[in-house]
Amino acid sequence: MLIIQKYGGTSVANPERIKNVAKRIARFQAQGHQVVVVVSAMSGETNRLIALCKEVQPACDPREMDVVISTGEQVTIGLLAMALKDIDIKAKSYTGGQVRILTDNTFTKARILAIDEANMRRDLNQGYVLVVAGFQGEDEEGNITTLGRGGSDTTGVALAAALKADECQIYTDVDGVYTTDPRVVPEARKLDTITFEEMLEMASLGSKVLQIRSVEFAGKYKVKLRVLSSFEDEGEGTLITVEEEKNMEQPIISGIAFNRDEAKITVLGVPDKPGIAYQILGAIAEANIDVDMIIQNVGQDGSTDFSFTVNRGDFVKAQKILEDMLPQVGARQVIGDNKICKVSAVGVGMRSHPGVASRMFKALAEEGINIQMISTSEIKISVVIDEKYLELAVRVLHRAFQLDQPS
Amino acid sequence: MLIIQKYGGTSVANPERIKNVAKRIARFQAQGHQVVVVVSAMSGETNRLIALCKEVQPACDPREMDVVISTGEQVTIGLLAMALKDIDIKAKSYTGGQVRILTDNTFTKARILAIDEANMRRDLNQGYVLVVAGFQGEDEEGNITTLGRGGSDTTGVALAAALKADECQIYTDVDGVYTTDPRVVPEARKLDTITFEEMLEMASLGSKVLQIRSVEFAGKYKVKLRVLSSFEDEGEGTLITVEEEKNMEQPIISGIAFNRDEAKITVLGVPDKPGIAYQILGAIAEANIDVDMIIQNVGQDGSTDFSFTVNRGDFVKAQKILEDMLPQVGARQVIGDNKICKVSAVGVGMRSHPGVASRMFKALAEEGINIQMISTSEIKISVVIDEKYLELAVRVLHRAFQLDQPS
Repeated sequence: MLIIQKYGGTSVANPERIKNVAKRIARFQAQGHQVVVVVSAMSGETNRLIALCKEVQPACDPREMDVVISTGEQVTIGLLAMALKDIDIKAKSYTGGQVRILTDNTFTKARILAIDEANMRRDLNQGYVLVVAGFQGEDEEGNITTLGRGGSDTTGVALAAALKADECQIYTDVDGVYTTDPRVVPEARKLDTITFEEMLEMASLGSKVLQIRSVEFAGKYKVKLRVLSSFEDEGEGTLITVEEEKNMEQPIISGIAFNRDEAKITVLGVPDKPGIAYQILGAIAEANIDVDMIIQNVGQDGSTDFSFTVNRGDFVKAQKILEDMLPQVGARQVIGDNKICKVSAVGVGMRSHPGVASRMFKALAEEGINIQMISTSEIKISVVIDEKYLELAVRVLHRAFQLDQPS
Repeated sequence: MLIIQKYGGTSVANPERIKNVAKRIARFQAQGHQVVVVVSAMSGETNRLIALCKEVQPACDPREMDVVISTGEQVTIGLLAMALKDIDIKAKSYTGGQVRILTDNTFTKARILAIDEANMRRDLNQGYVLVVAGFQGEDEEGNITTLGRGGSDTTGVALAAALKADECQIYTDVDGVYTTDPRVVPEARKLDTITFEEMLEMASLGSKVLQIRSVEFAGKYKVKLRVLSSFEDEGEGTLITVEEEKNMEQPIISGIAFNRDEAKITVLGVPDKPGIAYQILGAIAEANIDVDMIIQNVGQDGSTDFSFTVNRGDFVKAQKILEDMLPQVGARQVIGDNKICKVSAVGVGMRSHPGVASRMFKALAEEGINIQMISTSEIKISVVIDEKYLELAVRVLHRAFQLDQPS
């Protein structure tokens, strides 16, 4: 088998852990597998480099910032290759540019355009373990680029797709994907499998096991993706599958996700006419503020209320923008609340099972938790509630959908 | 003018100093000069990276070590380019590979084979200040290489040669080349000029201002080289010239160099026949031990004594090697002394001035300093003496050749 293994920053945090990773790789090779390893920077290193950049130039130049922060992964590939050679494994490191992982030139958040797999294939056939720097590539002109936070996952999946690997294993400090955060619900269970779509919803809702772009990528290129712990030698982790492969006994709901980092803004008395949503959200988007949930109700008396949520860090800025344009929009008032959170039930099972929403609302009502906003997609139901009810709501829903019981 | 400026590790040790370097560059650009800057790793960084490597693999793999340690300079180029942009100077960083500085594949001590100056020339003509990583290049296959300790000086000189720069300025933490170490002789004077040959002798004898390879390189390609302080805004530093340019009032001796890091080994009773020197020194060279001075006297009674000096760190090892081969060589005994030092008078003037050696020996004799070994070249006279006389000998010679008086 050809296996891609990706190790995150905590897995390679110091020489001792790097040696442990080398031993794990050696075991896979001894089983007859070809292995390509993707690594992140040693934990803390990227933040240290970013701090240096900001100290020198507060408005960091993106091209030069990529030159600096890409060194974090470059150090790790050299060290891991050395650790492998130290236990007599043939190994060779590759920077993103050496592979060549071709990206566009959007510095600090570049997108992968193509991967040249010829050299890697040649080295694999000669028995080398390849150690590739995650998070980085180069553009057409040879400038160094980085893929944005968590980009090493994307590198792993992209390499798996390019090399047609049998499996892409993502090693983290957790041993798989859970029905919800075990710190909130001790009864949370590890899932053996989860679909790509569910994983996308879980990831974007705050379960930070995998970077969302890497999951999209894996789904698109049908890469078999597995999340595992780099600190345990046993365990199968969680396999992320295309839906069809899941067994028939699929539970309705796979997990409860939540996100504390939300704030709600409502524009009251918006004229109910075409183009208003664009007018409001266009100004927000121009200020580079990401909008999450958007709710607009049917209007009465020719006016309506328009609500949406943003990251808490953008709350003040977004409110200011809207207040400045109140007259122009012809709306009455802007109100906001940054003491809210979002809780979501996620599961492909809800497609074929009616009544999931009402079961969710009933469970919350029984605890006296007021729902402020509701948003649904095919495989998830999200509610916005008062922040102080977050833990209670997650526990209640986890129990209501019997996630604490083995499937 | 096109100026190459090289800044060492202490000059870019932290964000504050990097900003100061940016301001200095800005002043040169404001005077209408084109500037290419070569930088080292922030001081301490290369040692930190080497320590990491050794912790992971005590017998560091050279290819992977270069991948790791080359990141030190890569961080600096990004940061300095950012500091320049922060004060509105158009700037662009280049790694060694991006330039492309083509080297052989002798990892950790590669030699520069060629420099592609097309891209740099294009960017210079568009008004950019270029910031190039010192110490690194890439081989024909795109592997990262480094040039060995002090290699950033070599990068600076090589770029000056490739771009036919008007001057190559080496910024360090001293303001020029001195007649001797001012810590030993407070009256030591800064030299306005020194010849390449003298500089070579001074550098190899322990005046660690410039890396010796870079001086050779500069001499070969007739690069105008100047040593300056990066902490002072005034001062012309020391210009390193080809001999012909020096004025006629050239003093006989330019400086007194010394080296504490020496040990002396003598093989007694060596049969006086062809091939013996090779037999002894061949074994030493095979063990990768550098030999400095070599003395063999005319033999008496068919046997002779053979002496040489090595770095003090190699003393025990070298003695052991020779003791093991005593029977094979047919010599009587190996004796050694690691409490010695070497003191040298250097100056192109001695070519045309006889009597320099006797003046030197007389000065030492007057202080009762016994000379153990003597070695001469066209422009230097070196003596090996007891280590405890080092400071005294340097002071006495500095005065004897009137180096404390303005020329």
